Amino acid sequence: MSGREMASANGESGTVVSGLEDNRGEEERESLSVEQIFESKSVPPWQEQLTFRAFFVSFVLGIMFSVIVMRFNLTTGIIPSLNVSAGLLGFFFVKSWTKFLEKVGALKQPFTRQENTVIQTCVVACSGIAFSGGFGSYLFAMSETIARRDTHGAIDPQTVKNPSLGWMMGFLFVVSFIGLFSIVPLRKIMVIDYKLPYPSGTATALLINSFHTPQGAKLVKKQVRALGKFFSFSFLWGFFQWFFTATGDCGFQNFPTLGLKARDYRFYFDFSATYVGVGMICPYIVNVSLLLGAILSWGIMWPLIETQVGKWYPAGQDDNLKGLPGYRVFISIALILGDGLYNFGKVFIKSALALNQQRRARAILPVTDANPSAGTSYDEKRRNEVFMSDSIPPYIAAAGYVTLAAISIGVLPQIFPQLKWYFVLITYTFAPVFAFCNAYGAGLTDWSLASTYGKLAIFIFGAWAGAAHGGVVAGLAACGVMMGIVSTASDLMQDFKTGYLTLASPRSMFASQVVGTAMGCVIAPCVFWLFHKAFDLGREKSEYPAPFALVYRNISLIGVEGFSSLPDHCLTLCLVFFLAAMAINLVRDLTPKRISQFIPLPMAMAIPFYIGGYFAIDMCVGSLILFVWRRLDKKKADAFAPAVASGMICGDGIWSLPASILAIAKVKPPICMKFLSRAVNAKVDGFLAN
Amino acid sequence: MSGREMASANGESGTVVSGLEDNRGEEERESLSVEQIFESKSVPPWQEQLTFRAFFVSFVLGIMFSVIVMRFNLTTGIIPSLNVSAGLLGFFFVKSWTKFLEKVGALKQPFTRQENTVIQTCVVACSGIAFSGGFGSYLFAMSETIARRDTHGAIDPQTVKNPSLGWMMGFLFVVSFIGLFSIVPLRKIMVIDYKLPYPSGTATALLINSFHTPQGAKLVKKQVRALGKFFSFSFLWGFFQWFFTATGDCGFQNFPTLGLKARDYRFYFDFSATYVGVGMICPYIVNVSLLLGAILSWGIMWPLIETQVGKWYPAGQDDNLKGLPGYRVFISIALILGDGLYNFGKVFIKSALALNQQRRARAILPVTDANPSAGTSYDEKRRNEVFMSDSIPPYIAAAGYVTLAAISIGVLPQIFPQLKWYFVLITYTFAPVFAFCNAYGAGLTDWSLASTYGKLAIFIFGAWAGAAHGGVVAGLAACGVMMGIVSTASDLMQDFKTGYLTLASPRSMFASQVVGTAMGCVIAPCVFWLFHKAFDLGREKSEYPAPFALVYRNISLIGVEGFSSLPDHCLTLCLVFFLAAMAINLVRDLTPKRISQFIPLPMAMAIPFYIGGYFAIDMCVGSLILFVWRRLDKKKADAFAPAVASGMICGDGIWSLPASILAIAKVKPPICMKFLSRAVNAKVDGFLAN
Repeated sequence: MSGREMASANGESGTVVSGLEDNRGEEERESLSVEQIFESKSVPPWQEQLTFRAFFVSFVLGIMFSVIVMRFNLTTGIIPSLNVSAGLLGFFFVKSWTKFLEKVGALKQPFTRQENTVIQTCVVACSGIAFSGGFGSYLFAMSETIARRDTHGAIDPQTVKNPSLGWMMGFLFVVSFIGLFSIVPLRKIMVIDYKLPYPSGTATALLINSFHTPQGAKLVKKQVRALGKFFSFSFLWGFFQWFFTATGDCGFQNFPTLGLKARDYRFYFDFSATYVGVGMICPYIVNVSLLLGAILSWGIMWPLIETQVGKWYPAGQDDNLKGLPGYRVFISIALILGDGLYNFGKVFIKSALALNQQRRARAILPVTDANPSAGTSYDEKRRNEVFMSDSIPPYIAAAGYVTLAAISIGVLPQIFPQLKWYFVLITYTFAPVFAFCNAYGAGLTDWSLASTYGKLAIFIFGAWAGAAHGGVVAGLAACGVMMGIVSTASDLMQDFKTGYLTLASPRSMFASQVVGTAMGCVIAPCVFWLFHKAFDLGREKSEYPAPFALVYRNISLIGVEGFSSLPDHCLTLCLVFFLAAMAINLVRDLTPKRISQFIPLPMAMAIPFYIGGYFAIDMCVGSLILFVWRRLDKKKADAFAPAVASGMICGDGIWSLPASILAIAKVKPPICMKFLSRAVNAKVDGFLAN
Repeated sequence: MSGREMASANGESGTVVSGLEDNRGEEERESLSVEQIFESKSVPPWQEQLTFRAFFVSFVLGIMFSVIVMRFNLTTGIIPSLNVSAGLLGFFFVKSWTKFLEKVGALKQPFTRQENTVIQTCVVACSGIAFSGGFGSYLFAMSETIARRDTHGAIDPQTVKNPSLGWMMGFLFVVSFIGLFSIVPLRKIMVIDYKLPYPSGTATALLINSFHTPQGAKLVKKQVRALGKFFSFSFLWGFFQWFFTATGDCGFQNFPTLGLKARDYRFYFDFSATYVGVGMICPYIVNVSLLLGAILSWGIMWPLIETQVGKWYPAGQDDNLKGLPGYRVFISIALILGDGLYNFGKVFIKSALALNQQRRARAILPVTDANPSAGTSYDEKRRNEVFMSDSIPPYIAAAGYVTLAAISIGVLPQIFPQLKWYFVLITYTFAPVFAFCNAYGAGLTDWSLASTYGKLAIFIFGAWAGAAHGGVVAGLAACGVMMGIVSTASDLMQDFKTGYLTLASPRSMFASQVVGTAMGCVIAPCVFWLFHKAFDLGREKSEYPAPFALVYRNISLIGVEGFSSLPDHCLTLCLVFFLAAMAINLVRDLTPKRISQFIPLPMAMAIPFYIGGYFAIDMCVGSLILFVWRRLDKKKADAFAPAVASGMICGDGIWSLPASILAIAKVKPPICMKFLSRAVNAKVDGFLAN
């Protein structure tokens, strides 16, 4: 969750573009604005932007990115920005396609940047469902697997809803489209009137625009080649690793790179191409924060608390929340909630202030543009013209919203009997406000707070339903409903901004979003189902621990049952960390950038608290590689690092597809690479000699 | 052994120089000859060429390269050319030294290329002893460890002489200097009169000359940096690997990279930085020949012969020469002898023809120079002048030879009672002829046949002494005496050629050779002793199998006892391979180069026959890296690949120094990285769970 928020704040697409702008500068073109460069290319009507090839490529990429996102959900919950990979690959596929048709002589329509935007939007909408569907969080949190992690005792069937393909798809279809309708009428206000920056959407647009200039096309060709090379390398590396993983505790992902003792405390480099790539994409401070969090928790706190076994918590409870894992989970939750609430407040206040200012400005200067000097620019005129030409009537949005809400109110209590119909009604009454807030906040700060809204829903509806009426599942389901709206709203507004800057029609954007969301509602549950059948999800220390599923379940439990289930002193510690998270954020915001850039992010620190530091070490290795590369050749590193990182992430991610198929087909790896201490090894050698 | 011959034939020093000459070309200097460029720099008198700093640096590098050569001796017996590393490091150390003194203001004497040649000569003489001392071949072949590999039965104490520091040093001091005196009087004939090319010596001289030009100094700085980087990487990699090697069958050197079945037949990539580096230095055809040999033997022949167990050889003899290992060893020997004899004959005939032609030419044109037109060049005049100015009187050489021979005749039978005094006398009577032949052949073809002369000595003296009088040890000791002369003779003549081309005085070269040889006689046995104490040398499948020790012992056994000890059909197979080796060589020599360059080298094919293909795979990986690098950036690859390879070889090699100290101090690695099949792993997990 938090990862998505963190990673979306990084500007790697911007970096690529800056590399391109260097080129453009060299050729003395800087005097021309973007739309002047593209003036000679006509914008096709919106129906022609929606081509079959675009949706076909989107479908393929949608599957690919759903797999990758799902893997992130289930391993650490950190989801880096995949815009660059989606952009590069989308461009590459359609470009190859059109080139081929051109050679055959069957090309009817050239590849335009509008079509490219349609693909990007569709892929983002599709893979977005893999995140907002909660397969690594609220949805999987309802399962018995996760419930068993809390306690060894009997499990109240009311608190459990095991995943199944049917209800997951139904739930997603009911929940995911409504965000779309809630946000459509606001697009003009957000994009044209308020001129919100939407950094990610803008970066994507710059990326797509750059692809369609001659220099950009040349650069992107090289970038795609780099991506392809590292994709193959990373795929083959995943394949190679597979052979040595006869059981879960064998193989490279258990390599005690820093020694066996360090591995016991989850400090090791696990040779994951994915997280090395993620480390290259995420800002240094994120990676350092993760590592600091790991050192603070697994390096200092947990070993100290361990010495209190029998005093603070009973012995022999190492696999449920009555023991040490309780401290890990609840302190993570405290940090996440502290950080989330602080940022919620901050973004809320910032938005309110900005909104107020904007209103006042408009009251004084009643023109369409708040900033008239910019409004006169050629680019802006042209963009506004296109953006306003194909409008979507507000009554369609309103009708769509009401219809979908009505269906939801009818269907959702069928799926979750614990979720009363009036809970859903209330959610949908207030949701558009939250959706607006989140879309506005994300536009201003690039920081989507969807998961914070979701957590608030867990508390409110969990407590309302109460323990006796299955409050746990009710809270988690309400979280899903809330996130479905709020997350979609901010994602799609980013897309509208992208479309605005690439002259794509809002209608084609909307259509592409609808198609992408529909794809996602089918693809994401299927991908999850594949992982669920193939791997042992949600087990501690496994490859797929799904850390946020446990976190969400326990947030829900706290909401329903209060703090009674926490081990001794845990509540005190939680309070300390909750306040510390807020304080650190406050210090970050109050100090000047040259100091604050070295202050760690509490949200990032929280993730290794529960799952350990191994992926933080991978990511720091990625940072190190990027750092050294930039020292050696800054220009090249800036232009190619995102492509290389994307290749590493995608190749390893896609390997999980054949890996899961092999697992389902019961094809097991032939070799176990085992790590034994010298003493144990001597015993084993003795045993094997007999 | 063969490796040294093979590797010395490669021209990597030439490559570096050619990279430099490109630079020189760019600056339009090609009109100046080498000595014209150096004209402004005066040549210091010979006493001043022998500085303390030169010998200090030589001593340090001598230890370093002795360790590296010893490691090669004991792992595979392939010894790549270390000229580039010695040259780069020698230059780098003295240059840093003089730079430091210059800054302090205490520099008395600038660093000249003559001093550099002195260092090079001293290091080569010193590390040469680590090879010609036979620690991986005849000397270790006498030990009980190797004798046990032949048979399980009782061992005749007459056939064994276990290594011990005292007698090894004594033996080397007695044997090693005599080669020097045997060759000194011939240096004028070989270098000035016959103008033999001595490719390795020439390449080293070009390298040293290039270091002392301004452009060369700039390039060498970069090369040293590359070397240093890969040195550290490779050292740290060795250190990292160490942690996972709790026992001999753990760790990266047993990584079943291609699967467990392939590892059983010794096909795997063992992550050895050394052999990847060696692969980058050796010509492609050597690496491919090694791999072909591995596939032919371990991939095809041994599995086929295994099916004949009980028929061709008795079951349960898998660890001595009565069983399958017999085929491996004796067929290797057949190939090595076939190749050796062929080349012996070829070089002999070639030398005789060339010598004859030279004599006839001189009879017609009685001038100092056989080729008067070349003799008039400025460079040659200057070089001849310097080379002849500091002469060494022939009576000193003669007196030295006779004195040393007399000491040998007295001392050697004390060390080896099996080696009668008249054997030694006979050897020293004929040895100067062999020394001349080998120095001449090596000058002509760059191919030192020292080990072939040694093998001939084994046969002759082994058979003469006979089984009853410890013929095995007598043969091996005679091999040592012969190699001591013959190998030194060709090595040192290469050095004289280097000195000739860098205007170093023959006297300083001689002094440097004496000092270097003395260093080697102390350092090499100490290094061997360290390895012997620290590691389990000579065990099959271990890190240090010392393959040529077993080969030499069995050559000696064949000489003494004939072919009676061979398993069934082995003699037939040996004969086939013996003849095949000759035939392949003949075809190589008769076909034009564009075909012959693809015909494998039988000598190279023989090595994996016994120890398996793992290091061949490493070396092919090195080839592949070099190939890809050259495709990407030929100029850079040619200039830096030798430095990178040297760094990888030296770093890994030097790691064996701390590794052996740790082993002697009984500090054992803490972790075992074990590779188990899935079935065995399940059993082990069951055992560990109890």
